[in-house]
Amino acid sequence: MFSLRDRQYMARALQLARIALYTTDPNPRVGCVLVRDGQVVGEGYHVRAGEPHAERNALAAAGEQARGATAYVTLEPCSHTGRTGPCADALIEAGVSRVVAAMTDPNPQVAGQGLQRIAEAGIQVASGLLEDEARALNPGFISRMTRQRPYIRIKIAASVDGRTAMASGESQWITGPAARENVQHLRARSSAVITGVGTVLADRPSYTVRPEQWTRRPYPGDWVRQPLRVILDRTLRTPPDVPVVSAPGHCLVVAGEHHPGRQNALESAGAEVIQLPASGSGIDLQQLLVELNRRECNEVLVECGATLAGAFVREGLFDELVVYMAPALLGSSARPLLGLPQLASMSEKVSLKWQDVRQVGEDLRLTLVPA
Amino acid sequence: MFSLRDRQYMARALQLARIALYTTDPNPRVGCVLVRDGQVVGEGYHVRAGEPHAERNALAAAGEQARGATAYVTLEPCSHTGRTGPCADALIEAGVSRVVAAMTDPNPQVAGQGLQRIAEAGIQVASGLLEDEARALNPGFISRMTRQRPYIRIKIAASVDGRTAMASGESQWITGPAARENVQHLRARSSAVITGVGTVLADRPSYTVRPEQWTRRPYPGDWVRQPLRVILDRTLRTPPDVPVVSAPGHCLVVAGEHHPGRQNALESAGAEVIQLPASGSGIDLQQLLVELNRRECNEVLVECGATLAGAFVREGLFDELVVYMAPALLGSSARPLLGLPQLASMSEKVSLKWQDVRQVGEDLRLTLVPA
Repeated sequence: MFSLRDRQYMARALQLARIALYTTDPNPRVGCVLVRDGQVVGEGYHVRAGEPHAERNALAAAGEQARGATAYVTLEPCSHTGRTGPCADALIEAGVSRVVAAMTDPNPQVAGQGLQRIAEAGIQVASGLLEDEARALNPGFISRMTRQRPYIRIKIAASVDGRTAMASGESQWITGPAARENVQHLRARSSAVITGVGTVLADRPSYTVRPEQWTRRPYPGDWVRQPLRVILDRTLRTPPDVPVVSAPGHCLVVAGEHHPGRQNALESAGAEVIQLPASGSGIDLQQLLVELNRRECNEVLVECGATLAGAFVREGLFDELVVYMAPALLGSSARPLLGLPQLASMSEKVSLKWQDVRQVGEDLRLTLVPA
Repeated sequence: MFSLRDRQYMARALQLARIALYTTDPNPRVGCVLVRDGQVVGEGYHVRAGEPHAERNALAAAGEQARGATAYVTLEPCSHTGRTGPCADALIEAGVSRVVAAMTDPNPQVAGQGLQRIAEAGIQVASGLLEDEARALNPGFISRMTRQRPYIRIKIAASVDGRTAMASGESQWITGPAARENVQHLRARSSAVITGVGTVLADRPSYTVRPEQWTRRPYPGDWVRQPLRVILDRTLRTPPDVPVVSAPGHCLVVAGEHHPGRQNALESAGAEVIQLPASGSGIDLQQLLVELNRRECNEVLVECGATLAGAFVREGLFDELVVYMAPALLGSSARPLLGLPQLASMSEKVSLKWQDVRQVGEDLRLTLVPA
């Protein structure tokens, strides 16, 4: 059904989509390649919300040469009128002769409609080429469309003996500069960063993306999108003058109780404050995810201490665990990687699967997903 | 000084030496290749103590063809008369024209003497070709010759969050069958396995090498050498009927106190019992290493719980840490990887260096050395 050439062009379309890894949010990353008579006549990718979709950019580049071309697109062309007209219509009008999609629209309500519309215009359509790669490009968008919640990535920095901080709380820095820069890449692709007030108080992080400091990977484009910073803070203890509030971008403080005075102070400092149901000593995470889904958050990065990370794991609310492991031992009195309640037996362990292992500077980066 | 051909033949000599990785103890692993007119005329390696050295085996294979050949040997030929006459003399008598060694004898008292003897016979000599590889083959023998103590490898099986057992003590099995088989490879190359009585009581391990069960790597040769099993047992609590005592091979129980009745029972069960100075709740590790050095132990494998492993690390008595990491989370109430006293600040952490990271079955094997 698909030729080697088809695969090569789709691989190129995926490569194009990846250029905008950090900027399309809340839209998916999409790339498109137009090929006629064995020649690439147009390439395009979606850059950011409000700007043209990948197909539009590729068609604009191809001009009249789009007629009779095959369009390779990493996501099924849309059939609805959003900020722009349907891309399906644009492809039909341009006179392409074939459309190959890597995957159909992840929204089960509309999946297949774009390709059907194109097929009904007499154009040959196919889907499923390099689908795994295309899905990996948009785990958050797919999660939101299919599960109505963001894709949750938990990031932890730890020693080989699984410790994240000294008993004293000192944690800066377990890992080296390359690992810390790599964390910014995770932030840059995330719609939101979630943390707990404990970490905000202990480490005074800013959770920003600072590509001007990046030494290992250039930031594509000239516009830096800062992820939403979410602080879970049941009793509103966040001081209004911390970097996570004042840094560029938007800060959302989620309270579990009503504290009008503290709320006013935070709002004056530029933060948004909302209240969600409390749960135990924290915030109800299910409700939090409903709220973040409502805000069109695709991928969220949980950067916090053992207690909050443990809460996400305990409730099964995570899709990926990224551990930056430093070549060091901190000892058994140092702080643990995850706060989890006592398990009765080995059979109750949380089983994971290795997804990726690589060296980042002097540290190791382990990526795992639920088994 | 060395040609590409030289490197290739020395690489082959190293390969030969590795065949006997599990059997030469307490002798070093050594390989030898004889080359004349661009042809390999003889190959040999040392198989086990009491049998001929690598050079003798290669010379026997070459016969008259050794005359005028170059001898590539992974360790400087011996100049002393041990169980056999000096290999230096054998090479001279055979009429080789050149001897290339990967490294000189690690014993500083005799280093260079073998090559000097050969040079004095008018034969060309050189040393240092693929020396790092040759040293890596015999870390224990080198340690014993230069530091008068064994090379200490600590092996730990842990979850991603650095836990080695449930709070209940349940630890069988965190890692999968491939990792457990891989541990037997570490045992097979070790002169001794060291454990604590706590682990003996909790897990009833045998610490034997069972190559008949190996599925991933054939055992070379037909003779299985069992490492000495050493139980650190200050108060002689080891029951005489445990597998570690009764299994094939020799078991040494190290007491810190005198308990004649328990000692008799263990000796009747086939164990050897000795007494060494106690230290804290355990045995003085420095004294233990003196004893193991006296017994010509090259590499020792520490397979134990967090307390004993922590003691070795705390005293800086380790050369390699091998962590088999299972893709699972056990939680913060499970048992820690290492018992270390509380460190006051991050600057007191035990710094390590990555040496090797690879997948073993479903688990990851991390090898680290002190920084």
